[in-house]
Amino acid sequence: MIDEGVLAQIRTMVAEREWDQFHTPENLAKSITIEAAELLECFQWHRDADLSRVQGELADVLTYCCLLADKLDLDIGRIVLDKLQETRAKYPVDKARGRSTKHDRL
Amino acid sequence: MIDEGVLAQIRTMVAEREWDQFHTPENLAKSITIEAAELLECFQWHRDADLSRVQGELADVLTYCCLLADKLDLDIGRIVLDKLQETRAKYPVDKARGRSTKHDRL
Amino acid sequence: MIDEGVLAQIRTMVAEREWDQFHTPENLAKSITIEAAELLECFQWHRDADLSRVQGELADVLTYCCLLADKLDLDIGRIVLDKLQETRAKYPVDKARGRSTKHDRL
Amino acid sequence: MIDEGVLAQIRTMVAEREWDQFHTPENLAKSITIEAAELLECFQWHRDADLSRVQGELADVLTYCCLLADKLDLDIGRIVLDKLQETRAKYPVDKARGRSTKHDRL
Repeated sequence: MIDEGVLAQIRTMVAEREWDQFHTPENLAKSITIEAAELLECFQWHRDADLSRVQGELADVLTYCCLLADKLDLDIGRIVLDKLQETRAKYPVDKARGRSTKHDRL
Repeated sequence: MIDEGVLAQIRTMVAEREWDQFHTPENLAKSITIEAAELLECFQWHRDADLSRVQGELADVLTYCCLLADKLDLDIGRIVLDKLQETRAKYPVDKARGRSTKHDRL
Repeated sequence: MIDEGVLAQIRTMVAEREWDQFHTPENLAKSITIEAAELLECFQWHRDADLSRVQGELADVLTYCCLLADKLDLDIGRIVLDKLQETRAKYPVDKARGRSTKHDRL
Repeated sequence: MIDEGVLAQIRTMVAEREWDQFHTPENLAKSITIEAAELLECFQWHRDADLSRVQGELADVLTYCCLLADKLDLDIGRIVLDKLQETRAKYPVDKARGRSTKHDRL
């Protein structure tokens, strides 16, 4: 789990390197996408990927997500819970069960 | 922060809908990238984005990250801390301070 | 411009290496996204990028686009023209002029 | 194929709407990535996608690629051919035949 201790270590790493100046919300959104695509690259030609590469790339995505949340004063747990509530409403169990169809076509 | 309570709610939402069958690591990696790009879309033409849209898209990225970590039996906090250690080593403070240069060109 | 001569050279390069077996439409779609993100990486922290890197990454995106079109028996010029027609209809000049707003909010 | 006629129609569509002001190289790179991910979304949960959706999204990627090339005064055919030459050199037929391995691990 990502608790305050983890978040504190991310912040310290960035502060020590004075990288905050590069971390506009826009640049962080770009960075999340770039790292997500590196994660996807682990699966470019095959369904199974090298676990240690996946782990490193997933960590990069998560770290930039935490930095963007921080920058916008959002609590990552709070926004995940809020979105879960929306998802539950958009995809009622009886309609969505066992289907990967998008809500607007359910 | 994303603690066990948040993770439990994500798992329940998925289990109730029997969506686990779609969540291969490869499909989750695709999903993380797709949601990351929707987050980026908030910043497509402008540097400042609508906060509530950003919040929703960031939550989607985080949720799929949690699902992929679960699927691979990874602890999201643990992998972030492991990667931080690597980053600290690759970007020593005295070399990286105030610079956005990639480590292989530092 | 990308004419039949260029397409023929792409096909030959792939055929000589027997890479067609990896080029499912799904894998090509992943590859387009991965290369697009590498293009974006040229602009990760700065608005201006190294032109020769941009050129190489843009070429990669285009090459995979041509391969996907080929695989699906689509003519890249034809589909671009078809989509232009849709775009013109969705964004009438008098409504869309000088605005970056999405059509559903115009 | 994408010839001068197709490029001219793209340019006219943009000019009529005065959209050139939004088309910085950075914004176009973001747009290419965003559209690439929409293309990928056609394959999010399944290997086979709806052909007409794929066609439309692929056209969007190609259109933004043409706009970025234009903006940087690059000929799309030229840069594809230049990159092919690099690829041929990095992946010699006898080493790369039938393998999806990256050049640095060949």
